[in-house]
Amino acid sequence: MRGLTAEIVSIGTELLLGQIVDTNATYLARRLSEVGVACYFRQTVGDNVRRAVQAVSLALERADVVLLVGGLGPTDDDVTRQVAASVVGVGLQEHPEALSHVESYFRRIGRPMTPGQRRQALVPQGARIIPNPVGTAPGFLWEGSGKILIALPGPPGELTAMVDGWVLPHLADRARQAGAGQVFYSRVLRFTGIGEAALEDRLRDLIASQSNPTLATYAGVGEVSLRITAAAADEERARALVEPVEQAVRERLGLYCYGVGDATLEGVVAELLEKRGLTLAIAESCTGGNVSDALTDIPGISRVLLETVVAYSNGAKVRRLGVEPAVLEAHGAVSEACARAMAEGVRRTAEADVGLGITGIAGPSGGSPEKPVGLVYVAAALPWATVAERHLFGGDRRAIKVRAARAALDLLRRQLLKGAQGTA
Amino acid sequence: MRGLTAEIVSIGTELLLGQIVDTNATYLARRLSEVGVACYFRQTVGDNVRRAVQAVSLALERADVVLLVGGLGPTDDDVTRQVAASVVGVGLQEHPEALSHVESYFRRIGRPMTPGQRRQALVPQGARIIPNPVGTAPGFLWEGSGKILIALPGPPGELTAMVDGWVLPHLADRARQAGAGQVFYSRVLRFTGIGEAALEDRLRDLIASQSNPTLATYAGVGEVSLRITAAAADEERARALVEPVEQAVRERLGLYCYGVGDATLEGVVAELLEKRGLTLAIAESCTGGNVSDALTDIPGISRVLLETVVAYSNGAKVRRLGVEPAVLEAHGAVSEACARAMAEGVRRTAEADVGLGITGIAGPSGGSPEKPVGLVYVAAALPWATVAERHLFGGDRRAIKVRAARAALDLLRRQLLKGAQGTA
Repeated sequence: MRGLTAEIVSIGTELLLGQIVDTNATYLARRLSEVGVACYFRQTVGDNVRRAVQAVSLALERADVVLLVGGLGPTDDDVTRQVAASVVGVGLQEHPEALSHVESYFRRIGRPMTPGQRRQALVPQGARIIPNPVGTAPGFLWEGSGKILIALPGPPGELTAMVDGWVLPHLADRARQAGAGQVFYSRVLRFTGIGEAALEDRLRDLIASQSNPTLATYAGVGEVSLRITAAAADEERARALVEPVEQAVRERLGLYCYGVGDATLEGVVAELLEKRGLTLAIAESCTGGNVSDALTDIPGISRVLLETVVAYSNGAKVRRLGVEPAVLEAHGAVSEACARAMAEGVRRTAEADVGLGITGIAGPSGGSPEKPVGLVYVAAALPWATVAERHLFGGDRRAIKVRAARAALDLLRRQLLKGAQGTA
Repeated sequence: MRGLTAEIVSIGTELLLGQIVDTNATYLARRLSEVGVACYFRQTVGDNVRRAVQAVSLALERADVVLLVGGLGPTDDDVTRQVAASVVGVGLQEHPEALSHVESYFRRIGRPMTPGQRRQALVPQGARIIPNPVGTAPGFLWEGSGKILIALPGPPGELTAMVDGWVLPHLADRARQAGAGQVFYSRVLRFTGIGEAALEDRLRDLIASQSNPTLATYAGVGEVSLRITAAAADEERARALVEPVEQAVRERLGLYCYGVGDATLEGVVAELLEKRGLTLAIAESCTGGNVSDALTDIPGISRVLLETVVAYSNGAKVRRLGVEPAVLEAHGAVSEACARAMAEGVRRTAEADVGLGITGIAGPSGGSPEKPVGLVYVAAALPWATVAERHLFGGDRRAIKVRAARAALDLLRRQLLKGAQGTA
């Protein structure tokens, strides 16, 4: 029942120099976890044969499957083929299928093939080709002594296509066999409006008492995730283990939980608005457009979002949103009254069903004892009421902006849920 | 002449599960390389004491400095303190300075401190505190047997503040001592408006012929960086090696180069505006607020940026920006005429000196043969002229948004430089 274990070794000096972020390893790790392949370690090495051999050998000692990412390109510092062959103790040979793939790629884009590019057809003796539907360099899989060694190219578009189209189906089969029927199932619940420590406090007994499923939290900026993972003979049984725990969590923390799995807070809000046929307009101040930027990552959001005004200056608050100068004089721009006036003003001037207003102090300067850095007011003007909340956020300027944006979206989410219940 | 070597160990099950991208390790690696600290390996482990001890012990064997990232939070799966203490063979003790920091953090945000949060004041015996100016958990540095072990919290805002403010100056000193005179100096030139392949093509002879300094490119979304690194007996000599190469690069690609080092495109634009005493207003459509969000990450931007209108609907373009309905009818919302009208309209209605307009098709749907997904028009309305550009960007919705935002800022940058020269 131990299941299949894997280890990812990312190869590339640019990773060690911090010139690029290793999104490949993240993608691969996520996909592996989804098919129940466990990763306990990950390594990164540069384009250096000796050190890469050291890392790959260590990985092969402790994992069933080792995935090498990067270093399959045409240049001299692409060392992965050589490293793989050296670790498993075989030579390199030109693979006819790989060669014809490389050749046809260059025919297609109408450029000549260099000798370096021809090297991309070399694989360790006995290896199978992993087709690359997107780019030049094919990957390969070598198998022996109960271990699997897989090499994949570094360009993210190529890697993801090959992982989804070939590697994952292949390893999912292996995982099922290795697990002797053992299957992992997890559900990620996404929370906002509650910190990681507070969330764990409210779930402490559940977390401590559970071994299958297990519960693990992770804190993002303005968000916390909880992963509930169960292992069982099949997915149905694993799901059945997860469900009562999920229920127990939701009973305690229901309103903080905005979604499941890949759900995003902005996606949930957009869906609620669309379901109820409501349009939205946003008046941002301290968030500077962050709410609007997040919402407009959603395809088709133009059905819901009419416009956003980032009213950074007081003049813009008055002129664009119709905030009364008296409100600004009496309460200041960072006040509940101003947040309400912004939400109502943008709702009215944009002729939207719902207005959202955010004002605060993102810092690092501009704070005072009465109105410290991190003080944020958010307001939602809905057809049935205008509501507002006060928050005090920690963190740097960017963190305060993001937390304020999350808080505004969450206020709207909760009001839309409540409204939906109220009118149901 | 071996210099100082470091190894980063990232600790967190969420990394192994691929739930988050390890931008911390990238940041740290980049900063270390900038002060001449060499990284040959990087490791990632989960919240598991046994395996984390294994990884950290291996790292301490082969590197002078080991940096642990993550796992310093208040919850039970935050194992880094325990792992560090176990690897170096000491116990944990409550550090008074750390405790008072944690206490004052909770006093400031006005929330009670949980027992878990108090655990954040524990450090291995003999360790020094690394102050955390942003969040709750302080880091620590333990030193012994010629090795340095550093632990830093995982939230990126906290990590970067602590690396820049404390860790890097500390390690740069050490690197100078360890290097026996060998010093690395690098300069990163930042480009936009040119792709990585085109940039490399234009520099191919320089890249091929140089071994000290070396040149390396890296492509971000809408941006390319070029790092020129030289090694010499002291910084002055290393600089002297870098300078002529930088000059040669700038002669070929000057206008594409928007800045050096940590410069951001939005920061450069903000500086140019402020230097010339010009205020800015922005009219975004397909970018949805991304330009404004980036600009408002800059402290004090309210001196320059008056307001942004995200005019997603045609109605908003007409009502908020005064775009003539006839322009929309004749040319459509995605057109040079509309981009110009948006830039001029927001300039006029916001009473700003400069207006920026962006309109395009971010996709995935909404494209046509004449106006495909990725088509973007950007326009800048300046006191002396209105200029516009047409772009066709690849990538997914998010990439098109970001590339369009970069293109708009870069158009403005080039116009401001030109204007400055014209009036000089």
